[in-house]
Amino acid sequence: MPSAMREPLRGVWCATLTPLASDGRPDHERLAAHVRRIFAAGVDGIALFGTTGEGQSFSTAERRAGLDALLAAGIDPARVLAGTGCAALPETIELTRHAVSCGCAGALVLPPFFFKDVSAAGVYASFARIADGVADERLRLYLYHIPQASGVAIEHEAIARLIRDYPTLIAGVKDSEGNLEHALGLLSAFPQLAIFVGFEPHLPAALAAGGAGTICGIANLYPRLIRRLYDHAGDPGNRDALALVERFVAALEGYPLFAAFKALAAELAGDPAWEALRPPLVPLGAREREAWLAAAAQCGIARSDAAGADRSDP
Amino acid sequence: MPSAMREPLRGVWCATLTPLASDGRPDHERLAAHVRRIFAAGVDGIALFGTTGEGQSFSTAERRAGLDALLAAGIDPARVLAGTGCAALPETIELTRHAVSCGCAGALVLPPFFFKDVSAAGVYASFARIADGVADERLRLYLYHIPQASGVAIEHEAIARLIRDYPTLIAGVKDSEGNLEHALGLLSAFPQLAIFVGFEPHLPAALAAGGAGTICGIANLYPRLIRRLYDHAGDPGNRDALALVERFVAALEGYPLFAAFKALAAELAGDPAWEALRPPLVPLGAREREAWLAAAAQCGIARSDAAGADRSDP
Repeated sequence: MPSAMREPLRGVWCATLTPLASDGRPDHERLAAHVRRIFAAGVDGIALFGTTGEGQSFSTAERRAGLDALLAAGIDPARVLAGTGCAALPETIELTRHAVSCGCAGALVLPPFFFKDVSAAGVYASFARIADGVADERLRLYLYHIPQASGVAIEHEAIARLIRDYPTLIAGVKDSEGNLEHALGLLSAFPQLAIFVGFEPHLPAALAAGGAGTICGIANLYPRLIRRLYDHAGDPGNRDALALVERFVAALEGYPLFAAFKALAAELAGDPAWEALRPPLVPLGAREREAWLAAAAQCGIARSDAAGADRSDP
Repeated sequence: MPSAMREPLRGVWCATLTPLASDGRPDHERLAAHVRRIFAAGVDGIALFGTTGEGQSFSTAERRAGLDALLAAGIDPARVLAGTGCAALPETIELTRHAVSCGCAGALVLPPFFFKDVSAAGVYASFARIADGVADERLRLYLYHIPQASGVAIEHEAIARLIRDYPTLIAGVKDSEGNLEHALGLLSAFPQLAIFVGFEPHLPAALAAGGAGTICGIANLYPRLIRRLYDHAGDPGNRDALALVERFVAALEGYPLFAAFKALAAELAGDPAWEALRPPLVPLGAREREAWLAAAAQCGIARSDAAGADRSDP
């Protein structure tokens, strides 16, 4: 029986981009190669099919197949957090069961995200239904708070009730609100949970307050930079990494985030196939792409901070 | 070959509530009985698994099975618009194909609704992918504009491109924004489309401007009232119906809409099973329920305007 889900997680986790094949489906080989490259560059684990990975754009069948393919390619499930949240709870339960059965490190779970103005009682009831539906004590649930996309905040009230009723299953929160006060509030209210920040510039402050680390998108592009940001948080050596990350985030302003990430991934990998997105997301136009790549280049992040920079990587 | 999808739709369509069995799944028998009751009360057709029907809370398997069960119970597919939009396009395509193969009047389709700030190009690409994926000239697509829930508006630019590229497939728009100016803008820009309003008080003005009718939730509760509102739009006889509908909408203010609908459906049918919702939606608390039912009663809508009021209904 896989015991991976028993360990509390820490460190630098990459919310992996999902490369697409020419038929528009997830490209399993490119994805496995990408994960090996970022692991070799110091990333501790991945969140598969999160927001950055366009997870919600893939069917439950595609998400199961993507996880299966990664594991078949030799990726350690203890280094995979599976994004399993769907709008409909039966599908979330199905994907979460599958992730548990695969021995994944945990399941990163959105609340149902179609309805807005959902009450704390409704958010609690949703996660309770998932926990009861999966019905496996190996489950480790990471609550995925990203209200600007999901439209549904996971409030303290819901978290407190979940911890009370499912003390071993609720392992942590990925806080992608991008608001440091919110992350610090979680750290202060729920010291028993692993709190990961999604917004990279907040990593040092969150770590100083007891945070577990980051699950973030920039680790797709510059994994060594995010590794340094994590390893030297609080050290003077951190200031350089933090300044670079802040500059990069500022350069992103005004561009559609995931299209910009994929355009830069294509550029850094020398592989135009990375640019494809699934609708409703669409690639950058030619002029926008050029402007964005120029802005990214001007951030001054060393090529050696990128994934796959070292050709001797396994 | 069913030809139902060839006709342009008009009239009073009910966005059916979905009753749940005690195991939390859609209750097919109660649903079929409800549809028969509202048809007998003058409703022209239903939108199955729309927002009011908590469609996004049900898995693709549940949505297929729900449609199959209704048709097996003898409901005419030419009176069913199937809500088939999912966050992931392959699932939207699967459900839409199924609806076409069943001979449904059309498919009511949300754009993918997880990502926000989606461009008009992304909305166009999503519906184009659906049309190409279904690849069946019998398809009649009704674009489902409900940005306050989906987070994704369907702009004129996307609609115009879709009409240009798929002239026979794009049949109409359900405009649930609740903004009359927006509905009138659609009617003026796209006279070839069947434009349905979701917000009942706007029905007379939309009909006067060439609208096709309404797809609405109140028809679950007071189908005869909505029928009168439609039939006498523009007549002096309409003022009473409009005033009642406006009073009812005002009474709803501050209550969670679908929980309030289901509480009143339970009350009117004398069947508490109607109160159940699937998370993330939850039923009203006891005190809230009592206050809401009192407020609804004070609107003065006659019992004879409700579904099933006439025991001789088939």
